Amino acid sequence: MTKDPGFDHGLLSPSSAGRPIEAVTDDEAVLQAMLDAEAALVRAQAQLGVVPDEHATTITAVAGAGRLDLDRIARRGVKAGNPVDALVAELTAAVTAVDPAAAEYVHRGSTAQDILDTGLMLVADRALRLIDADLAATADALAALAARHRATAMPGRALTQHGAPITFGLKAAGWLTGVLDARRRLRSVLDGGLPVQLGGEAGTLGGYLEYARLAGDSGEAYAARLIRAFAEEVTLAEPALAWHTVRTPLHEIATAASLTTGVLGALAADVQVMTRTEIGELAEPAPPGGGLSCALPHRRQPVLATRIRTAATQVPLLAASVAHCLVAEDERPGGAWHAEWQPLREALRLAGGAADAAAELTEGLTVFPARMRANLDVFGQLAAAGRLAVWLGPPFGPAVAEEIVVDLALRAHQRGKSLRDVATADPRVADVMDAGRVAATLDPAGYVGAAGELVDRVLHRYHEGID
Amino acid sequence: MTKDPGFDHGLLSPSSAGRPIEAVTDDEAVLQAMLDAEAALVRAQAQLGVVPDEHATTITAVAGAGRLDLDRIARRGVKAGNPVDALVAELTAAVTAVDPAAAEYVHRGSTAQDILDTGLMLVADRALRLIDADLAATADALAALAARHRATAMPGRALTQHGAPITFGLKAAGWLTGVLDARRRLRSVLDGGLPVQLGGEAGTLGGYLEYARLAGDSGEAYAARLIRAFAEEVTLAEPALAWHTVRTPLHEIATAASLTTGVLGALAADVQVMTRTEIGELAEPAPPGGGLSCALPHRRQPVLATRIRTAATQVPLLAASVAHCLVAEDERPGGAWHAEWQPLREALRLAGGAADAAAELTEGLTVFPARMRANLDVFGQLAAAGRLAVWLGPPFGPAVAEEIVVDLALRAHQRGKSLRDVATADPRVADVMDAGRVAATLDPAGYVGAAGELVDRVLHRYHEGID
Amino acid sequence: MTKDPGFDHGLLSPSSAGRPIEAVTDDEAVLQAMLDAEAALVRAQAQLGVVPDEHATTITAVAGAGRLDLDRIARRGVKAGNPVDALVAELTAAVTAVDPAAAEYVHRGSTAQDILDTGLMLVADRALRLIDADLAATADALAALAARHRATAMPGRALTQHGAPITFGLKAAGWLTGVLDARRRLRSVLDGGLPVQLGGEAGTLGGYLEYARLAGDSGEAYAARLIRAFAEEVTLAEPALAWHTVRTPLHEIATAASLTTGVLGALAADVQVMTRTEIGELAEPAPPGGGLSCALPHRRQPVLATRIRTAATQVPLLAASVAHCLVAEDERPGGAWHAEWQPLREALRLAGGAADAAAELTEGLTVFPARMRANLDVFGQLAAAGRLAVWLGPPFGPAVAEEIVVDLALRAHQRGKSLRDVATADPRVADVMDAGRVAATLDPAGYVGAAGELVDRVLHRYHEGID
Amino acid sequence: MTKDPGFDHGLLSPSSAGRPIEAVTDDEAVLQAMLDAEAALVRAQAQLGVVPDEHATTITAVAGAGRLDLDRIARRGVKAGNPVDALVAELTAAVTAVDPAAAEYVHRGSTAQDILDTGLMLVADRALRLIDADLAATADALAALAARHRATAMPGRALTQHGAPITFGLKAAGWLTGVLDARRRLRSVLDGGLPVQLGGEAGTLGGYLEYARLAGDSGEAYAARLIRAFAEEVTLAEPALAWHTVRTPLHEIATAASLTTGVLGALAADVQVMTRTEIGELAEPAPPGGGLSCALPHRRQPVLATRIRTAATQVPLLAASVAHCLVAEDERPGGAWHAEWQPLREALRLAGGAADAAAELTEGLTVFPARMRANLDVFGQLAAAGRLAVWLGPPFGPAVAEEIVVDLALRAHQRGKSLRDVATADPRVADVMDAGRVAATLDPAGYVGAAGELVDRVLHRYHEGID
Repeated sequence: MTKDPGFDHGLLSPSSAGRPIEAVTDDEAVLQAMLDAEAALVRAQAQLGVVPDEHATTITAVAGAGRLDLDRIARRGVKAGNPVDALVAELTAAVTAVDPAAAEYVHRGSTAQDILDTGLMLVADRALRLIDADLAATADALAALAARHRATAMPGRALTQHGAPITFGLKAAGWLTGVLDARRRLRSVLDGGLPVQLGGEAGTLGGYLEYARLAGDSGEAYAARLIRAFAEEVTLAEPALAWHTVRTPLHEIATAASLTTGVLGALAADVQVMTRTEIGELAEPAPPGGGLSCALPHRRQPVLATRIRTAATQVPLLAASVAHCLVAEDERPGGAWHAEWQPLREALRLAGGAADAAAELTEGLTVFPARMRANLDVFGQLAAAGRLAVWLGPPFGPAVAEEIVVDLALRAHQRGKSLRDVATADPRVADVMDAGRVAATLDPAGYVGAAGELVDRVLHRYHEGID
Repeated sequence: MTKDPGFDHGLLSPSSAGRPIEAVTDDEAVLQAMLDAEAALVRAQAQLGVVPDEHATTITAVAGAGRLDLDRIARRGVKAGNPVDALVAELTAAVTAVDPAAAEYVHRGSTAQDILDTGLMLVADRALRLIDADLAATADALAALAARHRATAMPGRALTQHGAPITFGLKAAGWLTGVLDARRRLRSVLDGGLPVQLGGEAGTLGGYLEYARLAGDSGEAYAARLIRAFAEEVTLAEPALAWHTVRTPLHEIATAASLTTGVLGALAADVQVMTRTEIGELAEPAPPGGGLSCALPHRRQPVLATRIRTAATQVPLLAASVAHCLVAEDERPGGAWHAEWQPLREALRLAGGAADAAAELTEGLTVFPARMRANLDVFGQLAAAGRLAVWLGPPFGPAVAEEIVVDLALRAHQRGKSLRDVATADPRVADVMDAGRVAATLDPAGYVGAAGELVDRVLHRYHEGID
Repeated sequence: MTKDPGFDHGLLSPSSAGRPIEAVTDDEAVLQAMLDAEAALVRAQAQLGVVPDEHATTITAVAGAGRLDLDRIARRGVKAGNPVDALVAELTAAVTAVDPAAAEYVHRGSTAQDILDTGLMLVADRALRLIDADLAATADALAALAARHRATAMPGRALTQHGAPITFGLKAAGWLTGVLDARRRLRSVLDGGLPVQLGGEAGTLGGYLEYARLAGDSGEAYAARLIRAFAEEVTLAEPALAWHTVRTPLHEIATAASLTTGVLGALAADVQVMTRTEIGELAEPAPPGGGLSCALPHRRQPVLATRIRTAATQVPLLAASVAHCLVAEDERPGGAWHAEWQPLREALRLAGGAADAAAELTEGLTVFPARMRANLDVFGQLAAAGRLAVWLGPPFGPAVAEEIVVDLALRAHQRGKSLRDVATADPRVADVMDAGRVAATLDPAGYVGAAGELVDRVLHRYHEGID
Repeated sequence: MTKDPGFDHGLLSPSSAGRPIEAVTDDEAVLQAMLDAEAALVRAQAQLGVVPDEHATTITAVAGAGRLDLDRIARRGVKAGNPVDALVAELTAAVTAVDPAAAEYVHRGSTAQDILDTGLMLVADRALRLIDADLAATADALAALAARHRATAMPGRALTQHGAPITFGLKAAGWLTGVLDARRRLRSVLDGGLPVQLGGEAGTLGGYLEYARLAGDSGEAYAARLIRAFAEEVTLAEPALAWHTVRTPLHEIATAASLTTGVLGALAADVQVMTRTEIGELAEPAPPGGGLSCALPHRRQPVLATRIRTAATQVPLLAASVAHCLVAEDERPGGAWHAEWQPLREALRLAGGAADAAAELTEGLTVFPARMRANLDVFGQLAAAGRLAVWLGPPFGPAVAEEIVVDLALRAHQRGKSLRDVATADPRVADVMDAGRVAATLDPAGYVGAAGELVDRVLHRYHEGID
């Protein structure tokens, strides 16, 4: 193999290498999206009668990434600060080879930012739809888990220590809520419509308009007509004006990615805790063809959760990079524009890798209710000790009730006895409730509050649709 | 004055010190919001008949920040990792002093996170409304500027260099678009409703439910009833379940703040460029009681824009901090929860300071159209040189047309002549257009494309309402 | 209590509220540091004979934060964009009240940035020394733990799953390495010397020099003389020139803080894992006066570790904010300077809170070797299975050796037997080693490699001093 | 051209695409560095007599990136969470093809993190040296500019407005200071020595030691011997112990990159200001083969400065990502390790692109002293007005002196006269100094304070070597 300097193949991107998100965000996909923008722009001008139809057809036919030298475009882009000039030169040459008369309509009246920004919106649109589909699959899997384990008791944990019990269904419902929230944001971005970029050199559409006049157009409401035609051709939305320095769309995309990896990161963090060797309440699906680790489910490293965490650590900072670029001076800033591209793309790629891993993880998750119960029992009666204090409240007052419970717990601990036995034998408790009632009160699996009702509320939201 | 260790007065917060946003986000405001949450929680339980009404009334009456020792609460909070236990202790003592019987209903069945999170939502709600009002005032001022300067020509600038001309109205319309975008996000957060936090220790509402049963409640649909009553009492929205570890609301608030400071930062960056001594197209309003700098508008430092930039630099990273905290493990994470508070509050505070400065800046902005025109004329004919190339296209072909224009520009530059004179005298141009047409074509003020139409589109959006 | 608008008392700062770091970084400390800078500047000018000594003495005597109205200074600072003008006005008034003749020497020839930046360096110097002292205490505690538990075997864990065993001493030695690294960075910043800021309005010392000439000074090498005298008086280092826009010192401080919270964050993360209810290998020291959680060590939440994690989550982003401000244009940037102050102070405060918590945590950490051993035994023989494969390598070749071990492990797992028993009974193993050798090979406590030697290497570094 | 899914060619990386830094940081460079680590590890074991020399020679000969399928390694890495297992499989196959007996010594006793981390250190070492060389070239160019323009007066600017004058030499000396600071940090990282990673599965060197014993080694001080031998073979430094979860080296590299892009970003921000059309004090070198923009230097966009700003915007956040990963739990964290790779590499790449651009920019920078002087004169006498106030101080007192100067300035402004003429005609001034003295006092070029002395101080530091 010969050396291809500067190529990245995903060697250091374990969250996304080789996954579907890669193919819609890689350099070739970006190049194709920019070519799609160039072709749509000519077709839009043809729609308005200022470019001959046959030339629009020719340019559209030629505008395939596979025909151009991506590597050369990338390298020449360094000189200009962006790759569009080089892309236009290559595309013009390719069109000239087919029909020289068509070549002069390439990029006519346009500017680099119209093409690159529109191209990025196409890439983002495709990437967000892919992510959303994986989130939908994840939501389906989580809804099934929440329903199935609506009453599966397990320890609740606060600052790493067992607290009051919960059910695994409630935990899954919490994860599901996060995924539904992320989908709502993604849908809001997608349904609002990512906008085309169209402004020409300084955002006035001056060049486009001048060429229209040259072709005999009145110029009346030309901005409205050209923006609409371009948006139609490239299947994006119509902005009120060029957003060369009003970078809201990028901020919305980047923060949607950051919400996505964040809610999935919470799920992954829980999975990592619950698959710990000593806890063992969950196991990730076995990867195909693994070794000893995979053969023994209780030794399986949570690689999918790790891929998600890897993304969740990085995306907030990539989104912050994009947010910084909102501060864009002049009609084109010297840096704030250029610094957006790589962080935006990387945020999408990582979110895509995380969503893809989350779907695989949740669809194949193994749940061990027996281990949940066993873990609950380690301090299980203590978990429900607060409940005993509630019922001792009326006779003793809440403060004394709590003191009694602490005293019982300490005595149980010191004597190596169960809290139930110590409590049953305690005359203060015995005055209030009998042994059966003590046992029921201290049964952690019985102290899961409204967990079931809460699961149902989330499933209702899930079944209602995203919102 | 005696030393108050650890107090911050805003000495290092020039974007917000002493501004209205400070009063709704300072420690006392946060404490009051948490007390509002405690009081509302008791009233909600009273609504459902599980707490006597008179005790709810007593607790509500006592729950004023002014009655408690904020400083002691803050310091004691360090031991527990959060200030709620100390707050509950102080509040309980204060209620006990009024009516010991009421005291046992303080914080009953509750957990620190229900109170602190609900308190933060109240603070955020108040802060976002304040920010939105300042953005609305900013939008009004910008709409007036955009309308007034719809046709005021000025240089367009790309990577710091003059390019094709624009109008100042178009620039103002771009700023307005950013402000409308930010308002849309703020309204979306506010209208969706910030949720109460209600889950009890582990998110199951176990404690609340147990006390309800103790009071004779059936417990049937108690989650639904209590969440609704609490949301009503505290005037926030009802979540499906506790979001102890589903931190979407914080992410939405923080990213709305980051969009706000970002779009205002773009405005501020432009103001900083345009007030530069050599450019002089804008001046900030004079601060009251300034010295020489203020006496001479062309020496006035853009302090308001600087306050905005100061905020815009910091908020994306504060939002990223909040986004990182989405990765919250267990039923209460050991750090991810605690690390949210200060960044969230600071993001709101900075966004509030920026919005406040933006309203003052845009309402008092002085525009110097003559300087815009003078700056335009420095390279003004070059700015429209591209337009000449358009019209030389048909006779010569676009490539040759561009070469002719470069040749003319270089000759004009070398001879110290105007491009118009050199072009008029050139036989290639003279064949295509007469001197008057050359002058009209090269007039930069005439080459502003669809700027007016684009301003109208944005003003239409403005008049239609936020969306 | 009356409302003090805008005061923060640390209510939302559980990592630092009320801790020693707060007193050296609060607004009053910052104000005093700026006053120290003003006083030192006059004394430096007096040293050079350009200000009468008695006036320097008077100004020094008056320059106490307690004499000025901090709150008013903070609020007035908003108008100017920084608090120094207001501070100078207040200080001048206070000096005038004592000796009007001295008042004209206040801030003579100076500029806001000289005072604020020098003040921040004083604050940073004091804060970093405090942090370093806590790190030193932490290092001492960790060195003792590493030595004591040099051979205490426990499970090694990778991606949450048990892997090869380690010793707790090795883990402590790793934490110690991080602390020594952080101390090395802090010492490097402190020993290099934080610099005074001295440049006057534009960095040329123009005003200082002009006043010197007015007082009859030749001006020869005046920069060298004044910088040296100022540095001496304020006990900071001498820079080559004013660093108004060369912000290296702030970057060094902020990244030292970020390294500090990072290495402590790693320690805290491990503590959080190891104190988990199911793992129980460590317990944090009990806070004074706790309730049930504190009474039962196995229920104790790792609050100190949580305080550290809280800091570690935020500081990298605060440091990034400071790093962004390196991009400072002109002789004083409109935003990049102002955006540094709060993030720098907050980074120091959080690092101080983390270091303080780390010292308390490590000095009081309870270690449960029996639980480590018990956890090791859960999959203990599997942990050392790789060792068996090594010794089966020569007779069978490494690939077959590994297959044999996987086969043994699976059979042990399926039959619920120990790996040792299955291996001893296996003829392939029996040909290579006897039962005693099998048992020794599979004893996890015996498979800790060079852990002891590595502990000694780190202790050697510790005893040698920081580096 | 066929589609290579997932390849990045630098299309969205205008700061580094095709520049030398790319070749030392691309995937192939990383793969080769990991192979260098694998080969060095076997040679180190051969040095200690536990691997036959001829096998080390064979493995070294085969360990070339060009022999392996990088793309397949990247894609298979997703399953394991890191690419090392796949790399080992491919390398083993390649060695087997040459000499099956050698194959079993590949990666013997090792773990993925030893190889990947050591590989990253090699990449970082190469990248930092390249960056340092570009910084050295930049420093040379800046030293020449500072010396040449030691006395070239230009406006000082604060918050975008003219203030007291400076010299361009002083500005260049400030930039140079930043570059020397960055070099000092880079040298500190390089001279301290980036460490090899060596710990085996859990950091105990258990596997390495077991194989050594198998080969008859006593195991005595084996950690010391193997670490030293490996460090020698791979030409990196020796750590005290494995830093699998003590990530100081990555933090040091990332923050050195962030300091580098920050100080260069300050330079670039100044260049962007000073090349503005209306200011025109500087021009970037013309790129080869540009069009109209390049033909006319006053129209040249600062593309090199833009490349630098692009990097400076992103690197602080990439460094923050790396800093977050300091919080690494267990013996290998599930995410914190994996999330470092791409941000670290990207930070190096961007810093390299920025340093490369800075060298080109500073070596080819065109300075227009006449424009500096012309800009100075616009408000030039106002710039030195403070100096007049100094000399009016003794007769009138400082407060009245300042009032007089403000009065003169306002009158000059209102009457369109020069401050000098108004001042000379004013009897209050005339009493203190004659017309010639007024003119000299108000000459801005004469009011540059100690600029020359400060330039010399910085040049002295430069000539002394980095520190």
